[in-house]
Amino acid sequence: MALEFKVVKTLDNGLTRAGVIYTPHGAIETPVFMPVGTQGTVKAMTPEELQMVGAEVILSNTYHLYLRPGHHIIAEAGGLHKFMNWKKPILTDSGGFQVFSLGNLREVRDDGVVFRSHIDGSVHYFTPEKAIEVQRALGSDIVMVFDECVPYPCTELEARNAVKRTTMWAERCMKVNLNEEQSMFGIIQGSVFRELRKQSAAEITSLNFDGYAVGGLSVGEPKSLMYEVLDYTVPLIPQDKPRYLMGVGSPDCIVEGIKRGIDMFDSVLPTRMARNGTVFTSKGRLTIRNAAFARDFSPLDPECSCYTCKNYTRAYIRHLIKSKEILGIRLTTIHNLAYTISIVRRLREAIIQGNFNEVAEEILRYYS
Amino acid sequence: MALEFKVVKTLDNGLTRAGVIYTPHGAIETPVFMPVGTQGTVKAMTPEELQMVGAEVILSNTYHLYLRPGHHIIAEAGGLHKFMNWKKPILTDSGGFQVFSLGNLREVRDDGVVFRSHIDGSVHYFTPEKAIEVQRALGSDIVMVFDECVPYPCTELEARNAVKRTTMWAERCMKVNLNEEQSMFGIIQGSVFRELRKQSAAEITSLNFDGYAVGGLSVGEPKSLMYEVLDYTVPLIPQDKPRYLMGVGSPDCIVEGIKRGIDMFDSVLPTRMARNGTVFTSKGRLTIRNAAFARDFSPLDPECSCYTCKNYTRAYIRHLIKSKEILGIRLTTIHNLAYTISIVRRLREAIIQGNFNEVAEEILRYYS
Repeated sequence: MALEFKVVKTLDNGLTRAGVIYTPHGAIETPVFMPVGTQGTVKAMTPEELQMVGAEVILSNTYHLYLRPGHHIIAEAGGLHKFMNWKKPILTDSGGFQVFSLGNLREVRDDGVVFRSHIDGSVHYFTPEKAIEVQRALGSDIVMVFDECVPYPCTELEARNAVKRTTMWAERCMKVNLNEEQSMFGIIQGSVFRELRKQSAAEITSLNFDGYAVGGLSVGEPKSLMYEVLDYTVPLIPQDKPRYLMGVGSPDCIVEGIKRGIDMFDSVLPTRMARNGTVFTSKGRLTIRNAAFARDFSPLDPECSCYTCKNYTRAYIRHLIKSKEILGIRLTTIHNLAYTISIVRRLREAIIQGNFNEVAEEILRYYS
Repeated sequence: MALEFKVVKTLDNGLTRAGVIYTPHGAIETPVFMPVGTQGTVKAMTPEELQMVGAEVILSNTYHLYLRPGHHIIAEAGGLHKFMNWKKPILTDSGGFQVFSLGNLREVRDDGVVFRSHIDGSVHYFTPEKAIEVQRALGSDIVMVFDECVPYPCTELEARNAVKRTTMWAERCMKVNLNEEQSMFGIIQGSVFRELRKQSAAEITSLNFDGYAVGGLSVGEPKSLMYEVLDYTVPLIPQDKPRYLMGVGSPDCIVEGIKRGIDMFDSVLPTRMARNGTVFTSKGRLTIRNAAFARDFSPLDPECSCYTCKNYTRAYIRHLIKSKEILGIRLTTIHNLAYTISIVRRLREAIIQGNFNEVAEEILRYYS
């Protein structure tokens, strides 16, 4: 097993915890937020900037890299780390989410999925084996199983069929050899149905993966419902394995997720919002385009010590965003990632120091 | 006078030379290439990256900053240096070129120009006095006079009228007070008509500016014609003042310009081409989108030591550009600016060392 996980401290609720994941590309302190590098680059950022904002691991997308530039080219380059010049850990998703959500689906069979490329319309066939082979070529540290993620809302029957297929596919993924340095995470589905989550958790955890993700959330359901699902699903995951909540990255959801025992998060939210000119601050969100900031020569967040806040004003960043300048997007992206990673760090520290609730409430005050 | 110019070495032709311009924001070794920061940012670059590629001075555009965010806001921010966090020298153009070329012109009078904003269609009136007042608010180190730049081709009468107006406007610009730390350059017009260039040079240099630009070139005329104009115009500029060829930045034109006694260049070419995926290398231009580079794991230019060439492959950069990723544009921009600045540096060194022709020919071999 290429990955080791150590719990450093667990709170009295038996769920909230701080830990460390050891990978061949370095240690990851958990809880952790993973910036998303969809196409082999976290949009607008260099690897050095990612390190500067404190990123310890990034997520990249199998579906996108398989279609472009193609996993064979990345394998020839010496793997994704080398291709994109990122020396720390990488987690790759399986492509399942994109295959199902990008809407170019042609046929879902028990054996696999036929879909059309969103780039050129070409037809492709993904099986569980194929999804793992592609990730093996990419050389990511953490490989995700190929799963079926249903939308919200969906019927119980749809969710049940997806759970069944997800388990069947997980078993097939398990049989595919990885590189020695790679680890594989299973994914628990079941939509918002308690019995299905229970069934999926039992079936998936019986396969003894290196970690477990809660999938099928953050797909349109109310936040309260997501928290409810976490409440009854997370306790079903073995305590000695990392728990990963897929696709979640808003400050409030991160706090609520950590509270409920989640160790890992990923989301395009901080980077996507940055490109739209919305920034996170310790006093809530801020739409930098607003006329109110035209003559505001203070930093985005006076309490932030990121590169953006140390060197630029709201007035300048507003000007850049309004003028569609790339530097504007770069500066807001740096800030939003630095902010998101910093709150996760603060929460980790608070778990260890024993003041988690206090810090959690401080963040939630401006994000609820 | 805020600016001082020292010639370090002049070649036997009495034209080609190396020098230093001393400004309140630092010294500029000439010949020099100035990256263009149209809207208060060199597209896709931070100030630190500009320093990394060797930029000693940048150009910014009065017309654009006047319209957005407005020069009053930049003055309130403490000037353009502070607004954009750039601590080295800045040269601002007068807005004349944009007013005439962006095609929203409504009326040209001897007194000034009425034009429409390309952003919101609002009507504005620029006079020579106004152009200087805006640049005073921006606080640039080098301020350019308001001139009339005619297109190519144009009739001799059109060119004659523009020369007349340019002189009249230069006299009026001269009478406007600048900040103590600012200097003003005159602009010589006359299109491709030798007598008009002679007249313009005589009139403009009689006003005793801190430096002189050759304007109205690189507006569509053949390169050979541009070199011819330089051949008879540059010798008319006082030797103790910097000579600036506006809007020129291709490797071959830089070499030919330096040969003919030009000290300063600016152009959007390296940054614009970078955004289109075309890069300069020591072996000529390269279109990085080409399929030939899909599996090419060598740097853009094996002889280049810029950040991009040290860390990334052609295959990766091709992938980024094809995927419309911002990092692709960032990496090609860094490289093209580093390349352009490096050839100007090499030519300066060669002037001092006495092997200018050799280095010039080496560059021209791949750019003619």
